[in-house]
Amino acid sequence: MRRAVFDAIGFDADDTLWHSENLYAATQEKFRSLLAGYGVTGPVDERLLQTEMHNLQYYGYGIKGFTLSLIETAVHLTEGRIAGDDIQQIIGWARQMMTADIQLLDHVRETVSALSASHDLMIITKGDLFDQESKIDRSGLRPHFRHVEIVTDKTQAVYEALLARHGVEPARFLMVGNSMRSDILPVLALGGCAVYIPYHITWAHEHTAADGAGEGFYELEHLGMLPGLVESFTAV
Amino acid sequence: MRRAVFDAIGFDADDTLWHSENLYAATQEKFRSLLAGYGVTGPVDERLLQTEMHNLQYYGYGIKGFTLSLIETAVHLTEGRIAGDDIQQIIGWARQMMTADIQLLDHVRETVSALSASHDLMIITKGDLFDQESKIDRSGLRPHFRHVEIVTDKTQAVYEALLARHGVEPARFLMVGNSMRSDILPVLALGGCAVYIPYHITWAHEHTAADGAGEGFYELEHLGMLPGLVESFTAV
Repeated sequence: MRRAVFDAIGFDADDTLWHSENLYAATQEKFRSLLAGYGVTGPVDERLLQTEMHNLQYYGYGIKGFTLSLIETAVHLTEGRIAGDDIQQIIGWARQMMTADIQLLDHVRETVSALSASHDLMIITKGDLFDQESKIDRSGLRPHFRHVEIVTDKTQAVYEALLARHGVEPARFLMVGNSMRSDILPVLALGGCAVYIPYHITWAHEHTAADGAGEGFYELEHLGMLPGLVESFTAV
Repeated sequence: MRRAVFDAIGFDADDTLWHSENLYAATQEKFRSLLAGYGVTGPVDERLLQTEMHNLQYYGYGIKGFTLSLIETAVHLTEGRIAGDDIQQIIGWARQMMTADIQLLDHVRETVSALSASHDLMIITKGDLFDQESKIDRSGLRPHFRHVEIVTDKTQAVYEALLARHGVEPARFLMVGNSMRSDILPVLALGGCAVYIPYHITWAHEHTAADGAGEGFYELEHLGMLPGLVESFTAV
């Protein structure tokens, strides 16, 4: 007979519990249109991504850093011609992103509610502290989570320290998320289990091949299938 | 005979352990010069503070939000005439602030080292997660602190939850910091003790009269006097 095997289940937040990348994609579309007004076409997205990657060491993840990278890219690609009003426009988009309604993914509310009855649930998300806390509050999901951990990056060392702090053995930990790089591979490397649920848009920075995935790795189409998977571990 | 009375001692970070406000002040001086080149004089600092206060609800605390507020203020006060190169200049100042050497305040290293031998020390700081972690790492002080808590704001409720999580009774907690609003008053309200060590520059937003201070409140000139104060509680 098999026993309940997970002491804790961790969930990524952006694009796992609620839509996020679509907000970035919509802003980038407006950004391309704005720059087109200056005669800038070409690989705007690629140039923006380069700027974001370079700035990650200064800004970390999140909307504020994204906005500063948009402004920097606009100055660069317009060769300094970008107008003050358009800069203000970009800042306005950032505020819209920060205050946009939280749109939960399908099946999230009932899945999280059901699993919280039998398991300790955690949110483990990277990004901007202020922004992530605000989203968690606005999502209405906070009561279902025993712990909320907002970290600067989701590396193996970060997961290891976090699980140790909560007294959870990696082998009894299940992580759920949409990023191979941040949610899956570091947890598998620690000897934990991980459920990959792809989101239809993935930020280029998070693309990682699934080659390293093996034991303990599961892929589901949507979060509504998670209770069944968890159940399959605990059934006879 | 009196016994050791504190189970934990909390330290604010910016302008308590290391200099911070001087970086903001230096950037604001450059900002005034830059705007003077556009014929903008008048109350630049006041206008910037207004913008920062308005934006706090969107950005929280930290250099990235400060930078976005600088850019917004520049666009507004130049009526959109600010040049792209000058916007890039402002972003460059932000990076300088983010990577500036950490300058510890006098007496910090020896005080923290000495007290960590006899007490559990915590850093409790608000602000940008990425930026604060980076500063803590660069400060070299991390090994002396049992816990590091980076929060979005330092209210009574935040202190209460944090102390409960660590199993510390407020009456056996001492907080040390340079902000009456963030470090002192909320801790006193919980029934804890608080040591106010003024910094020579205080951000206008953090100014609060000390009227509420009473029992459990102490003021010291510098951190080097803290071990003596703590000792006085534990001596016969």
